[in-house]
Amino acid sequence: MDIRNIQNPSFLKELSVKELQSLSEDIRKFLIETCAITGGHIGANLGVVELTIALHKHYNSPKDKIIWDVGHQSYIHKILTGRSTQFNSLRQYKGLCGFPKLKESEHDVWEAGHSSTSLSAAMGMAKARDILKEDYDVIPVIGDGALTGGMALEALNNIGHDRTNMTIILNDNEMSIAPNVGAMHNMLGRIRMNQGYNRMKVDVEHVLSKLPGGSRLRESADRIKDSLKYLVVDGAFFEELGIRYIGPVDGHNFDELEDALTAADSIKKPVLIHVVTKKGKGYHPAENDKIGTWHGLGPYKLETGEQIKGKANGPSWSQLMSDEVLAYARNDKRVVAITPAMPVGSKLTKFQSELPEQFFDVGIAEQHAVTMAAGLAIQGMKPYVAIYSTFLQRAYDQVLHDVDRQNLNVIFGIDRSGLVGADGETHQGIYDVGFLTQFPNMTVAMPKDENEAKDLVYTAMHYEQGPFAIRYPRGNGLGVAIKDNRQNIPVGSWEYIEKGTDIILISYGPTIETVKETATLLKEQGISASVINARYIKPMDFDMLNDIGQSNLPVLTVEESMLNGGLGSQISNFLTDQGYQNRIKRLGIDNIYIEHGDVNQILEDLGLSSASIAETAKSLL
Amino acid sequence: MDIRNIQNPSFLKELSVKELQSLSEDIRKFLIETCAITGGHIGANLGVVELTIALHKHYNSPKDKIIWDVGHQSYIHKILTGRSTQFNSLRQYKGLCGFPKLKESEHDVWEAGHSSTSLSAAMGMAKARDILKEDYDVIPVIGDGALTGGMALEALNNIGHDRTNMTIILNDNEMSIAPNVGAMHNMLGRIRMNQGYNRMKVDVEHVLSKLPGGSRLRESADRIKDSLKYLVVDGAFFEELGIRYIGPVDGHNFDELEDALTAADSIKKPVLIHVVTKKGKGYHPAENDKIGTWHGLGPYKLETGEQIKGKANGPSWSQLMSDEVLAYARNDKRVVAITPAMPVGSKLTKFQSELPEQFFDVGIAEQHAVTMAAGLAIQGMKPYVAIYSTFLQRAYDQVLHDVDRQNLNVIFGIDRSGLVGADGETHQGIYDVGFLTQFPNMTVAMPKDENEAKDLVYTAMHYEQGPFAIRYPRGNGLGVAIKDNRQNIPVGSWEYIEKGTDIILISYGPTIETVKETATLLKEQGISASVINARYIKPMDFDMLNDIGQSNLPVLTVEESMLNGGLGSQISNFLTDQGYQNRIKRLGIDNIYIEHGDVNQILEDLGLSSASIAETAKSLL
Repeated sequence: MDIRNIQNPSFLKELSVKELQSLSEDIRKFLIETCAITGGHIGANLGVVELTIALHKHYNSPKDKIIWDVGHQSYIHKILTGRSTQFNSLRQYKGLCGFPKLKESEHDVWEAGHSSTSLSAAMGMAKARDILKEDYDVIPVIGDGALTGGMALEALNNIGHDRTNMTIILNDNEMSIAPNVGAMHNMLGRIRMNQGYNRMKVDVEHVLSKLPGGSRLRESADRIKDSLKYLVVDGAFFEELGIRYIGPVDGHNFDELEDALTAADSIKKPVLIHVVTKKGKGYHPAENDKIGTWHGLGPYKLETGEQIKGKANGPSWSQLMSDEVLAYARNDKRVVAITPAMPVGSKLTKFQSELPEQFFDVGIAEQHAVTMAAGLAIQGMKPYVAIYSTFLQRAYDQVLHDVDRQNLNVIFGIDRSGLVGADGETHQGIYDVGFLTQFPNMTVAMPKDENEAKDLVYTAMHYEQGPFAIRYPRGNGLGVAIKDNRQNIPVGSWEYIEKGTDIILISYGPTIETVKETATLLKEQGISASVINARYIKPMDFDMLNDIGQSNLPVLTVEESMLNGGLGSQISNFLTDQGYQNRIKRLGIDNIYIEHGDVNQILEDLGLSSASIAETAKSLL
Repeated sequence: MDIRNIQNPSFLKELSVKELQSLSEDIRKFLIETCAITGGHIGANLGVVELTIALHKHYNSPKDKIIWDVGHQSYIHKILTGRSTQFNSLRQYKGLCGFPKLKESEHDVWEAGHSSTSLSAAMGMAKARDILKEDYDVIPVIGDGALTGGMALEALNNIGHDRTNMTIILNDNEMSIAPNVGAMHNMLGRIRMNQGYNRMKVDVEHVLSKLPGGSRLRESADRIKDSLKYLVVDGAFFEELGIRYIGPVDGHNFDELEDALTAADSIKKPVLIHVVTKKGKGYHPAENDKIGTWHGLGPYKLETGEQIKGKANGPSWSQLMSDEVLAYARNDKRVVAITPAMPVGSKLTKFQSELPEQFFDVGIAEQHAVTMAAGLAIQGMKPYVAIYSTFLQRAYDQVLHDVDRQNLNVIFGIDRSGLVGADGETHQGIYDVGFLTQFPNMTVAMPKDENEAKDLVYTAMHYEQGPFAIRYPRGNGLGVAIKDNRQNIPVGSWEYIEKGTDIILISYGPTIETVKETATLLKEQGISASVINARYIKPMDFDMLNDIGQSNLPVLTVEESMLNGGLGSQISNFLTDQGYQNRIKRLGIDNIYIEHGDVNQILEDLGLSSASIAETAKSLL
């Protein structure tokens, strides 16, 4: 069928299994073709084609609430709920969001982008239903990787105790973003291997029935029967938590899926259906991915799956940082790298294969990652935690309470700092400056280019006075000539990139490039601007700030960060505290959420293009 | 023995069980007597007397690393490591800390205050040991309540997978802070009841041995034997995660404890010893506590356990807030209360007993608590999350990503905001203003007195435009006459408490009282000060701020909060942005950690006493 005609999922009710299979093929073809042009989380979506169809056939959305954990696997859900024609704008400026979005459809009942929130959300919705005496099903769909996130386990514990009626779909694709790690993953693997165990149940009951009655042995036998579920039915882990386990179910078989969902209907308690799927199913390049390259990606060649790389000036920031840390780790066993499930995204696979003993992929477990780093540091190690800015939010308390408060030498490599583009609202790296600079012992830096990144890693590796965060953006470096030597950049020192006489522009990170363009634009108009590289966001360069105050020149700060708590706010506070009277204007993100789209387009909207900045600069003169 | 003579734990090696028991009695007596005067976490400590002694007898601290989760149960550890003579200063200004403290002793190898960090820390230390080829044991001691915290589960999953060599002591006192909730608690309860199961193992093996060989039945039987640990040995939950389970062990029996520790020594993988203890053991008032009153408390009468209440002017802030919310919940089923394991601390026990269906104690699970609230709100409920400021840090990402970003009507009652006194560094409520005001949709308020608190709850209950946080401090209200009616306080409106002509003092919360005293002091010196109640920290009263700017009077802001990101910083930013030239000075906490001690003493140190504030005010004139 032409899936561009799908308006809502009601048509699924009438389809035969054969028709569902044919629909699955059509959807796969559509996804593979569309994502080849737009990019996207193709692997995860190819894995849940049949599952999504089965859910929408069995339940009545939006009355029944299907909650997509993480949300990047909701493309088929978007197709079935009438959004297929918008896929040409997927993840683009003002286009279809790559995650569920309340305002896009009544079928999107919960937004996510970070993992492991679906079970808590489901419990909230289910309790609302019960208290208000409404009648609907709540169906969180959570991956095996997301299940290792602490908050999902907190929720399981609470749901099992409360016996909240819901049907949890555990989408076990044997791989979260990267190949899954963790004991829970091993456990699920054992279950998948041990399907024969279920057959045993009948045999064992038969044996037990032969035992003489009345004896202690008989009593034991009865207990064994009670406990059979722990022995021969799989899912002891979940059953121990008070959650009924059904599975494993082949996630690409409509009959099995429907049987399991029907079985769950009759149980008015929490049920978990263990669905085994294959990430990337139906597209060889994605199916054969063993490390997570096909998790979220850009456009690719349809025939081969070869990824079409944009023109990049320099190396990827992630690669640059990871390789730099690896160079130190080779010569110093104290240097270890930790990633919460992002070895590919953080470009740590080389580190992992070369120094496996000094490398820890802890799974989707940001809190544990940070506090484990604290434990390493307190015993004299030099841990490097590579973590996306947006996911560091999950470990706010661990950075504060465990690392910063104990003043431990942990280095944070904060990836995807600033605007992230296509991932959008849930993934912007625009909060960390605000919260990290509030922590008393924390040093926060951001390099303007590749060489400064190397120097900052050098500085951090030799710094023994507490935690040290180095932010770096998504994407690729500037492509500057890479120097051989590395040098210390004194903590709290800024530098003049240009010296001018009319106005002072202050920024940090690669945004410096934009501000340099602004200075050029201003020069063309006869305005002489200083450009300062505030490579240390904390501590600031107070000597330079005093000079700036004494100059009484107008100051314009520019950053891809929330204004409140940002560098500009702190500069403004300092100058005012000291009684200076410079005119000050802060550019950044002012109390709004930023949706997905091309970063340059968004910067333009925010008044952060070089031309806009120049206009603002002139208004200060 | 006179425990005041204990210098270090080495003497324990020589003691007989009888002598250890006698020492236990002496320590209990000492603790009960000392804490009667100083207050403290007496219940938890009385439960771990024998366990702590057994650990220090078996291991060699500080070479071996004993890590106390949460840390408030480390009093016996402090006694055994030579700090008994400092107990008269427990939790007092510059006195002995109520939690482990690196600078106090080499035996304190990890600091905590928040729960569930010990397993991650232990894994970090153990990996440091292995990589550096050192030789010591790592022994995290974690309560059954703390085990439900998400990060502890993240760590278990990672430790089990990695097979990291450590001995985890699960201190199961059947009660975390409040009576424990959650499926895991039920599971531990089943294990405690089912000790007979262990006996069964022999019987079952006997039965199985009678089965004929070679058959499919025989094959099944072999599999059953492999799986016996899941059936008849307890701890399937932990074994599934790859962690060897030993127990349950009587935590007050030295022989059992020593046997278990010795058994663990021979296992070079992660082992969990399930130790059952009785909270409050040896002191009837604490032993009989069923709800958590004896968790952390002030001085009490030795004979009866009756708590000696300080002179309080008004009702406790927690009680006032909880009762107010209860009043709305009685008439509106949409109003529900959520607490992460703090029904007693947050004074929600009345709510719990009166409206159990609208009440959720989710256990130590702040992340789940907040996102569950989001799930409730998205289905039209009006959830009230009562949470200490310091524990809200655990849910930073959930408040941002799930509640604020989706702009849901969740009310946060932020308890223990500001300085907390005796609990000290790990518990200060001084970060939430900084991070909450960065969230675009969040309203943040703090009442100056009881009546304003009631009005803010009224306002929040009728507010339907997004999340609403009401902060309130530890301790008791001012004792103002409580009015009957409640009224809406327009969001973003401030009020003049006093109008003056020389300087403008701005503050919020009960700190307003101190600032009023400052105004009085200034008046005596001929200085006329305005006092403004900035009851909305976000959004600010921009009309009033413009008036202030136009007055060009000096502005002094005063808050019990971190300066960076605080209200004063935002006021300073706004006035500067608008081009006003008022002299501005911000008082608060400037980039330092604040240790335990009397709040008034600490305020004095911080320059936040009324007299100090007056001096600062004069310096601005």
